[in-house]
Amino acid sequence: MIRSNYVSEITQEMDNQKVTLAGWVHEVRKLKNVTFLLLRDITGIIQVTGKAGTCDKNIIESMDIPKESVISVEGIVKINPEAKIGFEIIPTKITNLNPISKVIPFETTGKVPAELDTRLDYRYIDLRRLQTEAIFKIESTILNSFRNFLYNKGFNEIRTSSIVAEATEGGADLFPLQYFEEKAYLAQSPQLYKQMAVIGGLDKVFMIMPVYRAEKSNDLYHLNEITQMDVEIGFSDYNDAEKLLKDTLEFIISEVVRRNDSDLKVLGIELKVPETKVIEYAEVVKKLKEKGESIEFGDDFSREHEKAIEKYFGESVLVTEFPTKVRAFYSMPNENNKELSHSYDLIYKGMEISSGAQRIHIADMLVDAIKERGMDPNNFKSYVDAFRCGAPPHAGWSIGLERLAMQITGMKNIRECAMFPRDRKRISP
Amino acid sequence: MIRSNYVSEITQEMDNQKVTLAGWVHEVRKLKNVTFLLLRDITGIIQVTGKAGTCDKNIIESMDIPKESVISVEGIVKINPEAKIGFEIIPTKITNLNPISKVIPFETTGKVPAELDTRLDYRYIDLRRLQTEAIFKIESTILNSFRNFLYNKGFNEIRTSSIVAEATEGGADLFPLQYFEEKAYLAQSPQLYKQMAVIGGLDKVFMIMPVYRAEKSNDLYHLNEITQMDVEIGFSDYNDAEKLLKDTLEFIISEVVRRNDSDLKVLGIELKVPETKVIEYAEVVKKLKEKGESIEFGDDFSREHEKAIEKYFGESVLVTEFPTKVRAFYSMPNENNKELSHSYDLIYKGMEISSGAQRIHIADMLVDAIKERGMDPNNFKSYVDAFRCGAPPHAGWSIGLERLAMQITGMKNIRECAMFPRDRKRISP
Repeated sequence: MIRSNYVSEITQEMDNQKVTLAGWVHEVRKLKNVTFLLLRDITGIIQVTGKAGTCDKNIIESMDIPKESVISVEGIVKINPEAKIGFEIIPTKITNLNPISKVIPFETTGKVPAELDTRLDYRYIDLRRLQTEAIFKIESTILNSFRNFLYNKGFNEIRTSSIVAEATEGGADLFPLQYFEEKAYLAQSPQLYKQMAVIGGLDKVFMIMPVYRAEKSNDLYHLNEITQMDVEIGFSDYNDAEKLLKDTLEFIISEVVRRNDSDLKVLGIELKVPETKVIEYAEVVKKLKEKGESIEFGDDFSREHEKAIEKYFGESVLVTEFPTKVRAFYSMPNENNKELSHSYDLIYKGMEISSGAQRIHIADMLVDAIKERGMDPNNFKSYVDAFRCGAPPHAGWSIGLERLAMQITGMKNIRECAMFPRDRKRISP
Repeated sequence: MIRSNYVSEITQEMDNQKVTLAGWVHEVRKLKNVTFLLLRDITGIIQVTGKAGTCDKNIIESMDIPKESVISVEGIVKINPEAKIGFEIIPTKITNLNPISKVIPFETTGKVPAELDTRLDYRYIDLRRLQTEAIFKIESTILNSFRNFLYNKGFNEIRTSSIVAEATEGGADLFPLQYFEEKAYLAQSPQLYKQMAVIGGLDKVFMIMPVYRAEKSNDLYHLNEITQMDVEIGFSDYNDAEKLLKDTLEFIISEVVRRNDSDLKVLGIELKVPETKVIEYAEVVKKLKEKGESIEFGDDFSREHEKAIEKYFGESVLVTEFPTKVRAFYSMPNENNKELSHSYDLIYKGMEISSGAQRIHIADMLVDAIKERGMDPNNFKSYVDAFRCGAPPHAGWSIGLERLAMQITGMKNIRECAMFPRDRKRISP
């Protein structure tokens, strides 16, 4: 390791101690008798002060270095009430670790805003913006807290394949792939695989996998490759799954609040752990109609409806019992009214971030559901057969990582929340 | 939840308590006056005893149920020294949750072994074998302990794309893909992306992603889709990365030992936390030659060499300073001898499970290395440019999940360690 300490590890108690820091030159300000250099690492920014009389002339000269240079700084910690964080570094040696040999394509301090497309073309520069860094530190917390929450509840993590021989949900919008001599596709969802794991006795499983949808839409809240956080629970029904979804969201957000305080500040976000309301679809539609929204029973929610749900019901709303016909064929119908299904969407801050259902686990019922959609049960034979071999009741859901991150960080464009997004037009870097 | 308790939660202290269990019928044994049913869930197996006089006749009759049926059992816990685990369940109600309507394709208790191909065709049955279940419970521990070890060291988890516009390492063996109007490929490695994250200031990152290699080999230790556990550390050199690799392996194995005791027993494996030896490539080759192995300086290791390394050096061996020409172009050459590079492989139980290197972070040095391989630096322009914008020294490695799981679980075929493996011939389920 080049450094002895991260910036955030330096405290007033270390007054007069020698340290070695390493990071990027965030800013340099040359005054007549003093040069200030702001050094930035993943944990924060600290002031390095080169002052005639206190520092060697050569060292002060070595502080005259282009912004975004990668350097190490040996120096002494000094309490200085005038410095932003109460102390500064008096440098004894500054080393340019890898001199810059290309014009940095845009400003990272935010003084001159850059277009999103430019930032995405140069993500290795964009990640140095405090806002971008904050987004991905928060995403890391989301991933970590999702997994640990479930792991501590006895779930096993599984991995399934992203290469499939057929469309998993009978849909279009697949990316075709040449797999040696065979035609194959990128998986739209690990749905059938996680059901196989549950039927195989793994009981409660989760996974985080990329999924692919070849939709031609090019809007602010869809990507063609997304990261899906998937859950499936055996010997369970929609009540268990709905409660787990609520609890998981609330845990993730409480962890972001706890661990990413400074990142939320950088983004200007005041984040609170939501109390999720659970409301049936029919009731939601009734209220939206009363409020003058254009919606009829049987409609799927549009973006406008989702925003109205936040307005009229609150920050986190679990809408349950959707009409069967707008849901995937394997959703379990309500036993008292087969027009409704034990399915649910979680609308967080006015956007759907999760979707799920209790699944049909009775083979003959599944065949009927397939036929009712006008599909051929023969195309689903191996899937249906699994339900004839001792399949327990089960339910599940998935959360879209980038959408959840978008809603937590207050971003308006989902591309901000994928490090290397894939959309209708973007395939690199 | 259908169950009140898992099997492993039942203890002698619960004598005479009422419980509801749920799982699969592992075995049924009918004697003259008593019927034994073994109920299996994810946590274990328990005996359900239907005895004339103690149980209702209807209940005993309902125990005459095909193996692998999925059932719930309400009953009373009873201490019985004759039962295998010291207690049994006296049933008061048995419910067949989803009657079997297809012949189970093979035996799950292991009495009649099934071919691997058949087991993979019906993974949802195969997962009910205790051995298969044990493998994937161990894999879950590997994934969880890898992440937590690094997370607790301040690493951020990142996600990058599996769809790339070009070959990332200049290699062949890519699966081509149609991305709307564009030709694209499945990523062979997230190498360049994790370097971008480090150059972007994320400092220390890890990721777990599928990677794809269209190699036509069809042997026991390669898959065409593997799960790669990747690490990249900024402001670091090969010493830091080598130590972290050793420590990570040792932590993962100590966690498997701690958490998967019963799974290791099922597999008949006595697992010990290894002490990793660190030995330079040249010394390994010298010793192997002395021992009569067919190898010359400059050779990459064959499977036979890897086995010999275990024999002559031990269970866990980190081989360092490989010849530059057998490594990826971006490996940092040794500053005293450019024929050698700061690169390393970890050979665990006679198989390479991890590979890595300090990376070249100086743009001009990278251009030279590309030219020396006979490649065109123009094809790497955007990659090389990143190193001109303030790139810190960095190093990293990746571990192949399925290979590590194979070596821990003692499996001879890597397909055992991928839930839905993709190989030269297999693309479903």
